[in-house]
Amino acid sequence: MLRPDLAPAFNGARVLITGGLGFIGSNLARELVESGARVMLVDSLIDEYGGNLFNIAGIEEAVTVNISDVRDEHSLRYLVREQDFVFNLAGQTSHIDSMVAPYNDLEINCRSQLSILEACRHQNPDVRIVFASTRQIYGRPRQLPVTEDHPIHPVDVNGINKTAGEWYHLLYGDVYGIRVTVLRLTNTYGPRMRVRDARQTFLGYWLRLILSGEHLDVFGDGRQRRDFNYVDDAVSAFLLAATRDEAVGQVYNLGDANPISLTDLAQLVVELNGSGKWQLVPFPADRKSIDIGDYWADFSKIERELGWRPQVELRDGLAETLHFYREHGARSYWDASG
Amino acid sequence: MLRPDLAPAFNGARVLITGGLGFIGSNLARELVESGARVMLVDSLIDEYGGNLFNIAGIEEAVTVNISDVRDEHSLRYLVREQDFVFNLAGQTSHIDSMVAPYNDLEINCRSQLSILEACRHQNPDVRIVFASTRQIYGRPRQLPVTEDHPIHPVDVNGINKTAGEWYHLLYGDVYGIRVTVLRLTNTYGPRMRVRDARQTFLGYWLRLILSGEHLDVFGDGRQRRDFNYVDDAVSAFLLAATRDEAVGQVYNLGDANPISLTDLAQLVVELNGSGKWQLVPFPADRKSIDIGDYWADFSKIERELGWRPQVELRDGLAETLHFYREHGARSYWDASG
Repeated sequence: MLRPDLAPAFNGARVLITGGLGFIGSNLARELVESGARVMLVDSLIDEYGGNLFNIAGIEEAVTVNISDVRDEHSLRYLVREQDFVFNLAGQTSHIDSMVAPYNDLEINCRSQLSILEACRHQNPDVRIVFASTRQIYGRPRQLPVTEDHPIHPVDVNGINKTAGEWYHLLYGDVYGIRVTVLRLTNTYGPRMRVRDARQTFLGYWLRLILSGEHLDVFGDGRQRRDFNYVDDAVSAFLLAATRDEAVGQVYNLGDANPISLTDLAQLVVELNGSGKWQLVPFPADRKSIDIGDYWADFSKIERELGWRPQVELRDGLAETLHFYREHGARSYWDASG
Repeated sequence: MLRPDLAPAFNGARVLITGGLGFIGSNLARELVESGARVMLVDSLIDEYGGNLFNIAGIEEAVTVNISDVRDEHSLRYLVREQDFVFNLAGQTSHIDSMVAPYNDLEINCRSQLSILEACRHQNPDVRIVFASTRQIYGRPRQLPVTEDHPIHPVDVNGINKTAGEWYHLLYGDVYGIRVTVLRLTNTYGPRMRVRDARQTFLGYWLRLILSGEHLDVFGDGRQRRDFNYVDDAVSAFLLAATRDEAVGQVYNLGDANPISLTDLAQLVVELNGSGKWQLVPFPADRKSIDIGDYWADFSKIERELGWRPQVELRDGLAETLHFYREHGARSYWDASG
């Protein structure tokens, strides 16, 4: 257990995790199982997304897996009933894919969010919801670090749709009294992230490349600085947010106080791996037009109000993650949907 | 012609107006026909929306009417071809309806906007688009008058979806170079608005009530102040925006420098009608939760950059509108879809 003080809140509780076979969802599920929660995972296992059955290896018997798509509003109407908590993490996360297939992104990141909220409103209005939003909605930062008050100015279809999805949650809180908290995640990394390609996180793809003996490509001049949260820290934030009354109706940034440039990150990955190479390459045009440049979050609001701050240093988290993929990568992640 | 200097830009031009049988769309069509444009109107004539065939009485022979729904992406792919201008006005505009039927609002105000933009991107990337956005996206004003930099904070599903629709337009401008201008409209009134109920504008419904000898209900204490644009002024802004290169990629508020309280407005309507009564009534709960309170826009940006400002005084515009509905209301608007 990361946060022993939180376990009692979930002991015996009924918890639904959308995107539950995905990266953050499955790590969250592990914590909840340890806390004694009755966990149901909803996931569609779409090939290009983060869901992977291996993500729940070892806890298969302790959770209920319901393979269904959050776009299926009828299933959702049933599944949200009698849940104490909904961790709403299902989403299309690829910025590039959102530009190529904007309707698909809209169906998942807008329409499905509405249907989850409608289901909760009609079937289970007392449920506690934590929604996974994203730093992407801020677009290119006007000032750093980025606070929750920073203007919302998404630079891709995914960012626009995630904004709508977030705002539906806040609206259903304001108008219908549903107890909702929004977390705006920055780059999250760790065991069980999708590493097959750069759809979910470029860092995951880097780890797979370096473990496969391939070069890492760093786009542009590599000086873009970003902040990273280890998945256990992100999971702690979800659990904390779900249990605190003062978090209802609130939006919180997650983030890290030590942003790192992409070249330094590539160098660190090479160093931790013990071998490997990285190189600067020009930005592909489709990525350049939606790149947000430097980004790191001001997470002082959640630190002040809920006492959250990241515990895992990037170096330690990356070492742990490399270790995980060295052990499981080729068999369970290289080609699997996760 | 309202603006004789604009006519040459449209003479012989091919123009598509979505929502073209609606209130603003049909008034815009009249101007464009006078300018010598070849005008196609796309409208679905959905009962609850603003489309009404009577709105084009007198210009039926001068325009092409294509009855179709903007949700029909296949039709749109064809219809946008070879157009010089698209005035994109189709929308679900009822705030209350958006809460009762949120998917419907999403399909029209989000998904259809994406499909119009995708159609333009693939079929006609050189088209010039002006999109009708709304003050609703600002939510409850933090300061007055509201500038374009005011935070976006919609308070209903309609506001969230209109925000997404607006942002898709700006994004397709940024990423694909489509020449787009966004106008954020305030309350617009005038001949051809929907008066059958308060779905589109409460003021239209008031006019119908007073002309039918019924009382006007003013919600709350009636002190909420709002600004109003006569439809001819709004039409001028659309025409102006479409013709000016410096408007590409820009967002402009429309508005009026003389906001009026709802009680004063009710009194003015009664006075101009020569008879009638209004009364204060408590806010219905469903309206109170999404009411935005006082609102008036700062329209100095469009005044400074494009030279637009409203020309028609509220008293004159209202008198004109009352005259229109006294003549045509009972036969063509009371029960017709408009």
